[in-house]
Amino acid sequence: MSLRLTILGCHSATPRSNAHTSSQFLEINNDFFLIDCGEGTQAQLRKFKIKFSRIQRIFISHLHGDHFFGLIGLISTFSLLNRTTELHVYGPKGIKEIILLQLKLTKSWVEYPLYFHELSSPDSQLIFEDKKVEVFTIPLKHRIYTNGFLFKEKPLPRKLNMPAIVKYPEVKICDYQNLKNGKDFKTDDNKIIINAELTLDPPEILQYAYCSDTAYDENIVPLLKDIDLLYHESTFLEDRKDLAEKTKHATALQAAAIANKANVKQLILGHYSSRYKNLDLFLDEAKNEFANVALAEAGKEFKISN
Amino acid sequence: MSLRLTILGCHSATPRSNAHTSSQFLEINNDFFLIDCGEGTQAQLRKFKIKFSRIQRIFISHLHGDHFFGLIGLISTFSLLNRTTELHVYGPKGIKEIILLQLKLTKSWVEYPLYFHELSSPDSQLIFEDKKVEVFTIPLKHRIYTNGFLFKEKPLPRKLNMPAIVKYPEVKICDYQNLKNGKDFKTDDNKIIINAELTLDPPEILQYAYCSDTAYDENIVPLLKDIDLLYHESTFLEDRKDLAEKTKHATALQAAAIANKANVKQLILGHYSSRYKNLDLFLDEAKNEFANVALAEAGKEFKISN
Repeated sequence: MSLRLTILGCHSATPRSNAHTSSQFLEINNDFFLIDCGEGTQAQLRKFKIKFSRIQRIFISHLHGDHFFGLIGLISTFSLLNRTTELHVYGPKGIKEIILLQLKLTKSWVEYPLYFHELSSPDSQLIFEDKKVEVFTIPLKHRIYTNGFLFKEKPLPRKLNMPAIVKYPEVKICDYQNLKNGKDFKTDDNKIIINAELTLDPPEILQYAYCSDTAYDENIVPLLKDIDLLYHESTFLEDRKDLAEKTKHATALQAAAIANKANVKQLILGHYSSRYKNLDLFLDEAKNEFANVALAEAGKEFKISN
Repeated sequence: MSLRLTILGCHSATPRSNAHTSSQFLEINNDFFLIDCGEGTQAQLRKFKIKFSRIQRIFISHLHGDHFFGLIGLISTFSLLNRTTELHVYGPKGIKEIILLQLKLTKSWVEYPLYFHELSSPDSQLIFEDKKVEVFTIPLKHRIYTNGFLFKEKPLPRKLNMPAIVKYPEVKICDYQNLKNGKDFKTDDNKIIINAELTLDPPEILQYAYCSDTAYDENIVPLLKDIDLLYHESTFLEDRKDLAEKTKHATALQAAAIANKANVKQLILGHYSSRYKNLDLFLDEAKNEFANVALAEAGKEFKISN
């Protein structure tokens, strides 16, 4: 299985010609998700040649403009492109009213099925699942109601240990599914062969978490425990820790501290304030606390597989 | 006096990385206007180094996304930039509700005075005037309620004809303003010297009209009579005249016909459909009907003065 994350925009506050606001495209086991949708996201999707029709679900973290002002444009463009497949939007309460009012006043009702899943719980919730993937909210600490999102493969089936299986001729092909599901095997004379003798552990599941925008908050650490990839906002460096606290954002060092405590495999920094011209300073600062760290950058891809 | 128009975006329907939706910045006698505000307009303003604080009034032609989806972002950015001066928004009824709902739900009430002037009249109206400039609506024929805008210098004062004036020593400096305003001069012995003997005609006033989006409609010709500069949409070429009629847009040839009938000095084409890769075809087609025609292009400036 595999997970591919494409950064579409990773700058805070306002879009500029070379600094795009938050949006990411995530492919995980043939599910295609858009995470946040700042103004200009549809142009970024075109730039990086991501087919609009692939997007099935859009997750909006919070109702600050740099995270959702591009949503109405994208929803409208889907109409112009004659989309017929379902689109699901997950986001804070209010998002449905904003979109529907604009569709009404622009007289551009969409022809495709458009569903809103409005969020208001302060606790982590399972908000989507299919056969292979689950998505949970990660409650974040920001100036308004905000969720991060945890994208998680469902546990994979155990692997058949063929050299072991062939020693038991009574194990037939029709028994394989039960073995993959972890069941022990009972022979015709009621002898039990335990599952671990016939199968191998499955690959570890892939997990990606998106945490933006948020103040430093250790409460999220248990949700992030041992995951493969964490995007954690770092609007500021430690030089403006005061401003980070005031505006409920995090510094690069704080993002790294969360990554460290959660023992994630890789950290991605982003949501940079426009006051910083040299983004390498974010990397340098984070590395004091956590080694495997990368900078988000529009067009950059992160791929992992198991 | 002078007028400078900067094209920020001139493509129809959806923003792409190198095709920006409708927006123009107009400077006329120290008034600074934004006309339409498609998604991505604020990034275009930055790209072309137009200071956000200069924008005093925004005119929105109609509530199709490619003409106003960038407005909420720009209004929010003004807040982030600590704007204190008034902002006036002119546009179809509904625009206030769309913006205020988003400001409420994003919890980002603006600190600066924000005024909406909602339009619903089917007739041409004077919607703004100051000492030097008037703005009138131009009712257009589109799928939803749409206005173009006519930006018009106020009549300039007559010019003093000094060689003529010096022949009349009784005309004092304190009489000059009356002469400029067109009044005749009465001598001490009640003799009338007619104004035209002491003054010269003022320069012709500058006029610019923005007409997008619209079907071909000769009803607008009287409003455009003899103006200096006309932007008229040309979404299609004549090869898709059928589609232009169906979607209530115009072809390049039709835009040129309007320019010709109105006897304007220069025509600018824009609002191109993405189906056309070679925009020179628009120029070629329009030239069959009207000689002084130019293509709108992001970043292009049109300057006129009198």
